[in-house]
Amino acid sequence: SLSGSRRRMTPAGFAEAVARLELTNAALVDCTADDSIVEAYPAFINANLHIVTPNKRANVLPWRRYESLKELLDRRQKYFLYETNVGAGLPVMSTLRDLIASGDEVVKIEGILSGTLSYLFNAYDGSVPFSQLVAEAREMGFTEPDPRDDLSGHDVARKLLILAREIGLKMEIAQVRVHSLVPPPLRRGPFSSQFFPALARYDSTVLKRFEAARSRGSVLRYVGILENGRAEASLMECSRNHPLASAKGSDNIIAFTTTRYSRTPLVVQGPGAGADVTAMGVFSDILKLLHYLPE
Amino acid sequence: SLSGSRRRMTPAGFAEAVARLELTNAALVDCTADDSIVEAYPAFINANLHIVTPNKRANVLPWRRYESLKELLDRRQKYFLYETNVGAGLPVMSTLRDLIASGDEVVKIEGILSGTLSYLFNAYDGSVPFSQLVAEAREMGFTEPDPRDDLSGHDVARKLLILAREIGLKMEIAQVRVHSLVPPPLRRGPFSSQFFPALARYDSTVLKRFEAARSRGSVLRYVGILENGRAEASLMECSRNHPLASAKGSDNIIAFTTTRYSRTPLVVQGPGAGADVTAMGVFSDILKLLHYLPE
Repeated sequence: SLSGSRRRMTPAGFAEAVARLELTNAALVDCTADDSIVEAYPAFINANLHIVTPNKRANVLPWRRYESLKELLDRRQKYFLYETNVGAGLPVMSTLRDLIASGDEVVKIEGILSGTLSYLFNAYDGSVPFSQLVAEAREMGFTEPDPRDDLSGHDVARKLLILAREIGLKMEIAQVRVHSLVPPPLRRGPFSSQFFPALARYDSTVLKRFEAARSRGSVLRYVGILENGRAEASLMECSRNHPLASAKGSDNIIAFTTTRYSRTPLVVQGPGAGADVTAMGVFSDILKLLHYLPE
Repeated sequence: SLSGSRRRMTPAGFAEAVARLELTNAALVDCTADDSIVEAYPAFINANLHIVTPNKRANVLPWRRYESLKELLDRRQKYFLYETNVGAGLPVMSTLRDLIASGDEVVKIEGILSGTLSYLFNAYDGSVPFSQLVAEAREMGFTEPDPRDDLSGHDVARKLLILAREIGLKMEIAQVRVHSLVPPPLRRGPFSSQFFPALARYDSTVLKRFEAARSRGSVLRYVGILENGRAEASLMECSRNHPLASAKGSDNIIAFTTTRYSRTPLVVQGPGAGADVTAMGVFSDILKLLHYLPE
């Protein structure tokens, strides 16, 4: 990392040093999830670099900063490629962009956008208490170190915001309605081993919702929906025929209903997280950039 | 059409006329399903044109002609874009190409690649005889004028060949094993209204296969599979958990199992035929070409 290098350097300082090299056709590949690098994006763009990244933070910046970043990219004629922001290596952003570019209109986007929440509700069958399932998933490394980062739905909200902005909506993260799976009393304070016994007190609530869904032939899924200019992330009942009901394991699945794909949606499904498929998606973006640039 | 224009012109003659214009960054958009245009592709490429087309015929040419076409494209540095060859506007070829380009290895491709056969087996529930379902589908324009063109599986075989060649297999159309749904006695001769009563004599065979599948909790689907260098198209039993079982209506669905997408496949699903989604796919290819070309 930069802070560990012999000459200590800030991201902005690094951008300045790069600018002095007067590179053409170079790109910054930001494989962090850091704000500090994103803050230096304008400096990198001014240093004549394209940007390729799985980092979602630039695309969820407050609108003004987001807009001025896009304007700078435009003005400096630099590419900003972030296919892996949603669904990792799955062709989500490129598909959405192709639909729009070819004149289609998005009516609705719905998806299971968190691999962790996908896994939890695909695995949950009422036999193991929900809190235990989460604890086991954490043991296996399927959740963030603080599982509330998954259960809060915040990451799903960020992905919805990125999709919303891609279809031209001027939206802020606060406008995404997020229904957190973390009971209000457990939302504050640092994560500790006390979290799971505390969460267990809510196991019966999840079980009741599950049983109610099952009695109607449905399943529970944590779904993000973008429709009529509104974005919402919540635990939903899906009938077994629902386009999202076919996701398995820790699959992401995303269904685009458009003017042309109206009877049945265009659906992309598959593993949507993990180092290998994310690396593949970033590398694909780099290859695309090479393709776009003059030789 | 060319034959109807004031100056009658062959495709090759048209290519020559275009060559004299000395165009740069021009493309032939071949929206026919004709062999005569494909035969003139070399002339168009030599006239300095890129090619964008939904026409499958170039990609299923005998290997030698296919290979020499690809070599000519390479030598003349011309693009050949045919995203709509499989799944119309669905991101099938681009996804496959991205997987390969980023170093993934294809283990298996399986799909429901015919909208007509998808519709027939999604709709078939044993209550209406299969021959009647086909006759009704033809009435509604869901089949080719001669429904044997759909039922033969030949179009599925062509799509499998295109996918096979895309992953680097040196394959000929005759090497694709196709199990036709047209009973042998009905395969010859022109189509007539006598076809449906004749087909009705085989209704009980389809019903028996359907009942057998249902007794095992499975469904019947006409599936194309590419695996271990072999391609096969046939009516298959799929369990309800099978990745392909979630296709609805006349959806195409295609599942890529690769080294990286190994636990669950990368799946693309949606309407895979029709003028609007095909036009959209061709237009997307034209936009991609614009993106690739120097300004």
